[in-house]
Amino acid sequence: MITTAEILKNARAAKPYIATLSTEKKNSAIMTMADCLVEATNEILDANRLDIEAARGTVSDVMIDRLALSEDRIKGMADGMKQVASLPDPVGRVLASHTRFDGLLIEKTAVPMGVVAIIYESRPNVTSDAAVLAFKSGNVCVLRGGKEAFRTSFAVVTALRKGLEKEGLPKELISIVEDTTRASANELMTAVGFVDLLIPRGGKGLITACTENAKVPCIETGTGICTIYVDKDADLEKAVNIIENAKTSRPSVCNACETCLVDREVAAEFLPMLYDRLCVSRGEKGVAPVELRLCAEAGEIIEGVAAADADFDTEFLDYILAVKVVDGVKEAVSHIAAHSTGHSESIITENSSAASYFTAAVDSAAVYVNASTRFTDGGEFGLGCEMGISTQKLHARGPMGLDELTTYKYIVRGNGQIR
Amino acid sequence: MITTAEILKNARAAKPYIATLSTEKKNSAIMTMADCLVEATNEILDANRLDIEAARGTVSDVMIDRLALSEDRIKGMADGMKQVASLPDPVGRVLASHTRFDGLLIEKTAVPMGVVAIIYESRPNVTSDAAVLAFKSGNVCVLRGGKEAFRTSFAVVTALRKGLEKEGLPKELISIVEDTTRASANELMTAVGFVDLLIPRGGKGLITACTENAKVPCIETGTGICTIYVDKDADLEKAVNIIENAKTSRPSVCNACETCLVDREVAAEFLPMLYDRLCVSRGEKGVAPVELRLCAEAGEIIEGVAAADADFDTEFLDYILAVKVVDGVKEAVSHIAAHSTGHSESIITENSSAASYFTAAVDSAAVYVNASTRFTDGGEFGLGCEMGISTQKLHARGPMGLDELTTYKYIVRGNGQIR
Repeated sequence: MITTAEILKNARAAKPYIATLSTEKKNSAIMTMADCLVEATNEILDANRLDIEAARGTVSDVMIDRLALSEDRIKGMADGMKQVASLPDPVGRVLASHTRFDGLLIEKTAVPMGVVAIIYESRPNVTSDAAVLAFKSGNVCVLRGGKEAFRTSFAVVTALRKGLEKEGLPKELISIVEDTTRASANELMTAVGFVDLLIPRGGKGLITACTENAKVPCIETGTGICTIYVDKDADLEKAVNIIENAKTSRPSVCNACETCLVDREVAAEFLPMLYDRLCVSRGEKGVAPVELRLCAEAGEIIEGVAAADADFDTEFLDYILAVKVVDGVKEAVSHIAAHSTGHSESIITENSSAASYFTAAVDSAAVYVNASTRFTDGGEFGLGCEMGISTQKLHARGPMGLDELTTYKYIVRGNGQIR
Repeated sequence: MITTAEILKNARAAKPYIATLSTEKKNSAIMTMADCLVEATNEILDANRLDIEAARGTVSDVMIDRLALSEDRIKGMADGMKQVASLPDPVGRVLASHTRFDGLLIEKTAVPMGVVAIIYESRPNVTSDAAVLAFKSGNVCVLRGGKEAFRTSFAVVTALRKGLEKEGLPKELISIVEDTTRASANELMTAVGFVDLLIPRGGKGLITACTENAKVPCIETGTGICTIYVDKDADLEKAVNIIENAKTSRPSVCNACETCLVDREVAAEFLPMLYDRLCVSRGEKGVAPVELRLCAEAGEIIEGVAAADADFDTEFLDYILAVKVVDGVKEAVSHIAAHSTGHSESIITENSSAASYFTAAVDSAAVYVNASTRFTDGGEFGLGCEMGISTQKLHARGPMGLDELTTYKYIVRGNGQIR
């Protein structure tokens, strides 16, 4: 077994190698790695069976489902890699250029971060996704997956490394940490001088551990207490459609809606519509109804569970929606400032000044007018891919694509200029 | 005396106010603040005299000089502010725009960070510089200057706040921390939820304290162990001119050269030229000669002090230059990777492949070919101003102008789109 320290040392040494690879070479290597992944289907499925056997009984069925691969899923992972090959290379872009009066040419040029470490949980497809995004953006990657999926992820990395080898590239460009205890996560968080960027992908516990303990640059991703505010000037039919979509189309993801705020002026009209759509109609259709957790005022209008204070600070990731009546857009913005995780919020209104106020005053990564929060996603935003969704303001905010995995340097060319 | 906690609470509350100010209003307020600064010249000079009296004897003459204001210096500070009014507003820029097939319009829009805290040392002009840059970029600023300059900085902030008041703006947009003990610096570093960006401006001790203790987003600025490498294919006359400029034009600043690496192939020819220019000629002209700290090999060619290992890891900020003979551009790059602070490095060569290799492989904020490292500066780079020079890779790298004091959010406008 290779230690995490050795992996990091090798990764750092490989940085100059990948930073100077041509776009063509990187794309060719991605195609070869994707082919090797498919060729390794049997080995990966064998490893996956062992992971699933070991996990069964200790984790939920949902987790088992996330963990399970199939021939089709592996093919899907390879196709995803090939799509990344077709995206523009983010490295070498000249972001700004300035020629001085004395002829000095200053070019702000996109360059890789260096070593990107990704700590994630048990979905093995993240292994190939993260590796290919790091690779395309010229970064060496060090992956640290959840222990439940270790055998599978290791088999995936082995296949990718075979692809690197076929292309004559050093295998150290993509590594997986073999120690799956908490110690290795801490080692990555504190590997100053070795890790240029740490990206935790996972639940609140992981993100909090990283932001509290990380000594290396870190980008928080993921948790979303997304809010939809129904303004007094909302088209209420639109509102109910959008909330149903944002709450129920995929409740386990970070861009799902968790809180609905309703302007007092339309509460008596709107809340029964909401109740009817989310609770009654869904029940009749045989799909999961939504449990409404209601503030006192909403509870006087429709049926539901009385909301506790904590319900407005909870990412339910389930068919549960917290509902609160507010006194207009200003109170909605204040509520969001106090309770949101800065991910995605939406206002439903036909009033352009309410919309402008909301988009200006809400300090979140994505702020919507009359649309579902579920669109906050690299693919939906046209980035072509996604490494995660940043909920911080420094460097990257919202969906992180290839560009967000680069930094820049100023390359300055002269002919003897002095100051 | 207002506590730091109260200042932070007020600052956070003022965020939505400044984020939505028009460019015209911000520029008008900057002009008024600059006028109020000049009008307060007597009060500021009185405060400055008290600071200087208190500091005399406890700090060096250089520090006293940095601390001292005059009528002209105050006028200069006001002029600097007015220049910032003339720069483009970084807020509201649409950085990217994407209209989806379903009509959803996604705009990546530059927005202020929120509350920017700046911890700096004793130059009182930083007070007005930092305040105006934060203000123009739509940020509330919390300043925490060095205790030697507190009375002066407080008088400067009082003048700026008078300007805000005249413009009908809340004075909380610009605050100065009144507690000048280490406790207040720690308070800013750990003010999660209150400080959106912390910028330490100062020496190594301050920067290290921030990177080790900060729980809020922080951008490291400043320290520079800048290196110039003289390649075997260098124009040696150009090399000696550039090194003299980079070392001696202003040795106390972070973009001054601290280390010279010389390719072994030209060492015997180049080092005597360097010695002659930096030591002999300067001595004859009556300007400060440079003390050369030489590796063993260089010491066999020219006279100088034998370099200790630590000399290659020291920001001298003085007329001292560490000199080392290396085996070509690859060893130069390795030396820089091991010893540089990631600020600015330069290669002197007429060989384009050596230049390309150097600019690609050196992982610093600014990488030069045939020019002095002294150009790494917001003004020189055409940014119009500078909040500091970032030596980190996340968010901002190199000189930080107004754009680097903003983040972005995605503003998404729809008409009922669901996913």
